[in-house]
Amino acid sequence: MEVINYLLGYKNLNIVQNTEWFNFSLDSVLLANFVTLRTNTKKVMDLGTGNAPIPLILSTKTSAEIYGVEIQKEVYDLAIKSIKINNLQNRIKIFNEDARNIDRTFETDTFDIITSNPPYFKINAESLTNDNDYKTIARHEVMMNVDDVLRISKKLLKNNGVLGIVHRPERLVEILDKMKNYNIEPKKIRFVYPKENFDCNMILIEGTKNGKAGLKILPPLFVHDKNGEYTKEVKMMFEE
Amino acid sequence: MEVINYLLGYKNLNIVQNTEWFNFSLDSVLLANFVTLRTNTKKVMDLGTGNAPIPLILSTKTSAEIYGVEIQKEVYDLAIKSIKINNLQNRIKIFNEDARNIDRTFETDTFDIITSNPPYFKINAESLTNDNDYKTIARHEVMMNVDDVLRISKKLLKNNGVLGIVHRPERLVEILDKMKNYNIEPKKIRFVYPKENFDCNMILIEGTKNGKAGLKILPPLFVHDKNGEYTKEVKMMFEE
Repeated sequence: MEVINYLLGYKNLNIVQNTEWFNFSLDSVLLANFVTLRTNTKKVMDLGTGNAPIPLILSTKTSAEIYGVEIQKEVYDLAIKSIKINNLQNRIKIFNEDARNIDRTFETDTFDIITSNPPYFKINAESLTNDNDYKTIARHEVMMNVDDVLRISKKLLKNNGVLGIVHRPERLVEILDKMKNYNIEPKKIRFVYPKENFDCNMILIEGTKNGKAGLKILPPLFVHDKNGEYTKEVKMMFEE
Repeated sequence: MEVINYLLGYKNLNIVQNTEWFNFSLDSVLLANFVTLRTNTKKVMDLGTGNAPIPLILSTKTSAEIYGVEIQKEVYDLAIKSIKINNLQNRIKIFNEDARNIDRTFETDTFDIITSNPPYFKINAESLTNDNDYKTIARHEVMMNVDDVLRISKKLLKNNGVLGIVHRPERLVEILDKMKNYNIEPKKIRFVYPKENFDCNMILIEGTKNGKAGLKILPPLFVHDKNGEYTKEVKMMFEE
């Protein structure tokens, strides 16, 4: 069933979702609030954008041109609907393409910022047997993996351009290692915890193309308080 | 001036320090409380042990044989005094040697656990001009660096033995990368924050020799509360 949900309360931003597929998740909201926007940010790209939660949120934070790419036609259609109902056609452009080939559409050194909430899980037996399933493609590295995100980012980011990704803590070592290999220097990490005294279940990482070494680990982000409600910090992301 | 300080309150553990030199720091206390002790832990080694805060604290937590190595004679002398006043001569043995050569004293695959609070800072102009200063050797990688710790650990740890180190967040990427190179698989990290809303200023990392991949990021550790006092968790480490 296709539904329209609020994405941000006070700014009245809506998002079109299909309840049977993979819905936008908190991960995208956290990433859109984590990535460093500068006043001179001109072009932003979101790789594997889904129904475009990251472009939609970023449109409230920057006047830059925002692009996204989504391989699945039906999911892409939702993104387009969302952009229309929010009247953001002049601000956000989504491509229905394989993100791995988006470097054919854009010249090298084009973007100030690239974001990605890529599939988190390595390919396994399940992902291979269900490879045309919407959820599987969103969750498993069937179509795009960390290497793809880094390769495209290295190519399409301007010098000193910023890549922001959200991923799982189990993949931290591998991601940091690969960022180095692609000359995207890890500069800023935030570890996300479901609540106090729980292990980290999400990592937000920002790197700079050809940046100097020097990593900052920001304060931890707790999603829920002791009563199971969103913390003040997370609530504010939805009320913007 | 040489003084005797409490190291742990209720267990009446004391430590001998020289107020003009580098005193034991919270880092060592946190590391000694972070590292995974098992009931079958038989031999523990602390590389660059200083005045032996880590062996002293570990002696209250495990019945294993505890070893330490400290290159500086005067600092080693303090360690020996501390061990005597606590009457732990049968439990802790410290070597006055270069930790980089301690693999000449012990056979390969000897230790269940190796700990190290190594010097944090890369060699710079200052460290080279003051290379016989106690503080410099404790703080700068003049005598021992991360590679040395990993090389010795790879050699002296038993298979599946555990290395626990404390270091600075700026060095995270490099340390994780090097651990992989030495087949010491990062398994557990805890990020330490001076207080809420501050950036991380210390990292606790544990790795397993020839371990399987699978990193857990534990809940963040806050050192001080809003009033500037130690948090309950840190207080408990001193009151054991």
